[in-house]
Amino acid sequence: MTRLSKLGFVWLVGAGPGDPELLTLKARRLIETADALVHDALSPVEVLAWARPGAELLDVGKRCGRACRPQSEINALLVRLARAGRRVVRLKGGDPLVFGRGGEELAALAAAGVPCEVVPGVTAAVAAAAAAQVPLTERGLSQAVLLATGHEAPDLPGRVTRWADYAKLDATLCIYMGRRRAAKISAELQAGGLPADTPVLLVAAAATAEQQILPATLGTMAAVAEAAAPSAPLLIIVGEVARSPGEAGPRPAGKPVARAAALALSPA
Amino acid sequence: MTRLSKLGFVWLVGAGPGDPELLTLKARRLIETADALVHDALSPVEVLAWARPGAELLDVGKRCGRACRPQSEINALLVRLARAGRRVVRLKGGDPLVFGRGGEELAALAAAGVPCEVVPGVTAAVAAAAAAQVPLTERGLSQAVLLATGHEAPDLPGRVTRWADYAKLDATLCIYMGRRRAAKISAELQAGGLPADTPVLLVAAAATAEQQILPATLGTMAAVAEAAAPSAPLLIIVGEVARSPGEAGPRPAGKPVARAAALALSPA
Repeated sequence: MTRLSKLGFVWLVGAGPGDPELLTLKARRLIETADALVHDALSPVEVLAWARPGAELLDVGKRCGRACRPQSEINALLVRLARAGRRVVRLKGGDPLVFGRGGEELAALAAAGVPCEVVPGVTAAVAAAAAAQVPLTERGLSQAVLLATGHEAPDLPGRVTRWADYAKLDATLCIYMGRRRAAKISAELQAGGLPADTPVLLVAAAATAEQQILPATLGTMAAVAEAAAPSAPLLIIVGEVARSPGEAGPRPAGKPVARAAALALSPA
Repeated sequence: MTRLSKLGFVWLVGAGPGDPELLTLKARRLIETADALVHDALSPVEVLAWARPGAELLDVGKRCGRACRPQSEINALLVRLARAGRRVVRLKGGDPLVFGRGGEELAALAAAGVPCEVVPGVTAAVAAAAAAQVPLTERGLSQAVLLATGHEAPDLPGRVTRWADYAKLDATLCIYMGRRRAAKISAELQAGGLPADTPVLLVAAAATAEQQILPATLGTMAAVAEAAAPSAPLLIIVGEVARSPGEAGPRPAGKPVARAAALALSPA
């Protein structure tokens, strides 16, 4: 039996928003050459087929409402694989360091002396903006973009998300995982001063065949979120950039926006 | 002479932070098949070699301090190429819809009836975070990420960037194009309540051979920005996530951080 005495290596790799073509070239190369792939529910399943024969595929899928493997177990698994000499690719949906607890995996690897590298990816906010063809920044309209989460850590009650403050920034707000708390977020943003008719776009399952682009306003976004496919990742874009070109007055809620129709024309 | 009567198509394609391997698979496929590539100073030059023989390569490079081609001319060029039946890839550094004026190009194409699609990319903030191995969000430390620009539109004096408000968010701040105004930004963030010893990382030329990762504090960041390679894109990360693991007390300014050393171990 060969003894693997060499310490392995871990890459935390962004798996992008859902379309396998939205992984980077580097992500694909690393997947093709890894000894072990540690993936979860937000990595596109198609990319697992890129693994070399004999590579270990380890599903640590965790999603709200389903069985959750504790983060500490995932951290320990990565360390164990690296100590066994494996070249490990840890696939994380979107970008590894945006709302993915990638920092906790990095810290565990550093504490164990395991060398690692992070390969950035396409995060959900920019994928949703691309799908809806809305700029996240626009001269004279939005000078900044805030990426926020609707999923507050329940075990960290001291860290309340500051929606009322976010309402005052004149920034585009991109809300990850906001479905279940959409009504509360909407109310708090309005309490912070954003008008109920502030344009909103909800993008479900961006960059997949199930993609939905649903227009709303701050006042209607909770109802529209209810209508989106319940199991798909949802990204909510709030701000003036979400207004359709030439649009004025009240907008119909929940009907696909006109600008999204252009996607059907793609010859790709 | 063949008459091109078919309307073309324009893809706005994210070219990522600098490393050609950080383009997406879709970006590469589109570059390989395009009739025309419209690129600028922030697209990695290596990717132009992927173009098919006979493809038109059009440099509309504009960078602060060098000759700038007006945005209106770029918009008109894209429309003209599409009307001539070309399949056009418009390469934009990072992601097309984050601080890239991609919205203006989309609006011009829509107004001209040109079909288009946006292919999202790896934006500088996540590339810098990956390079420095710092999470942009961290449970109990930072619930949100603000992407802001240090380059205010000079022709839009009414839209002042709200640094004092940004200082109050308990969010990680990622500042694009902040080199020239680093002293002013630092002063305004401190006026907004962020302590002078708030950890800062400056990442110059992320994801290139010239990459520099420079630790600083809010108080020293302007001086450290002066020391970074002047022609490289600079991304400034401000917030508790930028503190090295286990670090306490004052930090040395301008020396590469220890965590970056792990990159040298990469077997890739």
